[in-house]
This record gives sequence, structure tokens and C-alpha cells, in this order.
Amino acid sequence: MFKAEITVTLRPSILDPQGKAAHHALGELGFNGVHQVRIGKFIELEIDAPSAEEATRMAREAADKLLANPVMEDFQVKVNELAGA
Amino acid sequence: MFKAEITVTLRPSILDPQGKAAHHALGELGFNGVHQVRIGKFIELEIDAPSAEEATRMAREAADKLLANPVMEDFQVKVNELAGA
Repeated sequence: MFKAEITVTLRPSILDPQGKAAHHALGELGFNGVHQVRIGKFIELEIDAPSAEEATRMAREAADKLLANPVMEDFQVKVNELAGA
Repeated sequence: MFKAEITVTLRPSILDPQGKAAHHALGELGFNGVHQVRIGKFIELEIDAPSAEEATRMAREAADKLLANPVMEDFQVKVNELAGA
């Protein structure tokens, strides 16, 4: 069994209203050193696969087809074997 | 200038309906090897601070006060210096 961690981030050219709202709220709380906030997704999958390569392939395909929006978002995949699997 | 990456995940005991919906949709798409899906947040901050330690302290405080919900979520912070800063 493998654990895949998929980090989904908005492309730099895409506006991030949620991040902008968080940035504004941090300013109100006195966090004046924070200059930019971008908010993406962190998705964890548990995958039953014969190898780490195959688990990585499945995680990339899942991100590409469903979990990320390839027009607006980039994603990165990291796969680790689960202990005791 | 530093870049902080904050990974916010739901605590294991908290139900994740969004992850459950994604899991179901992956099953419909034929991803039968995927056994669990948990969806969290990945937040990037650009922080002006005198040191990495101070940037880390600010990022942790921002996560604790605003970006994560300490009752339902855990978070991890990673800080790197931005090139050319």
C-alpha cells in the first residue's frame, strides 16, 4: 500500500481571491510582514498498487482527470510506501 | 524574503465529505486501487522577516490564528529563503 501526496497550486497567472482575502485578514491581525498568500489543495490518497512507480502513475492520472484543473492549476505528486504494507 | 509552505490536514478522527466524494468519483472513473482520499489545504506565504526562525514563527502563528482550525485540523510549516532576497 502506498500513500500519495498531491499538492495542487494555482498557476501564477491565475488570480486567487481566497488567498487575497486571507492576506487582508492577516493584515488586520497585524501580520504586516506577510506579502502574498496563495491557497491550494493538499490531497492524500491511499493506493493499492504493485509498485511505487505504478502508484505514482495512478496518482498523476487521478490528479490530471479529476483532482486538479489542468487549465488553472499545477500539481506535484510524492509517493511513499506505507509502513506495514 | 522567505517562502512558507503550510500544509493543513484534517485530523484523522474528522470525517472528510469532500474526500469521500472525490473517492467515489475516482471509483466511477475506474480507479479501483484508491482506498482513501483526504483533502486538505496547501498555503504559500511570502514573508518579509529578519531570519528563517522568525519567518517560521510568523507562519505558525498565522496558521494557528487564521489559516487552520486548531479544533479540526493539524498543520505543518516549511520555510525556505527566496532566491534573490
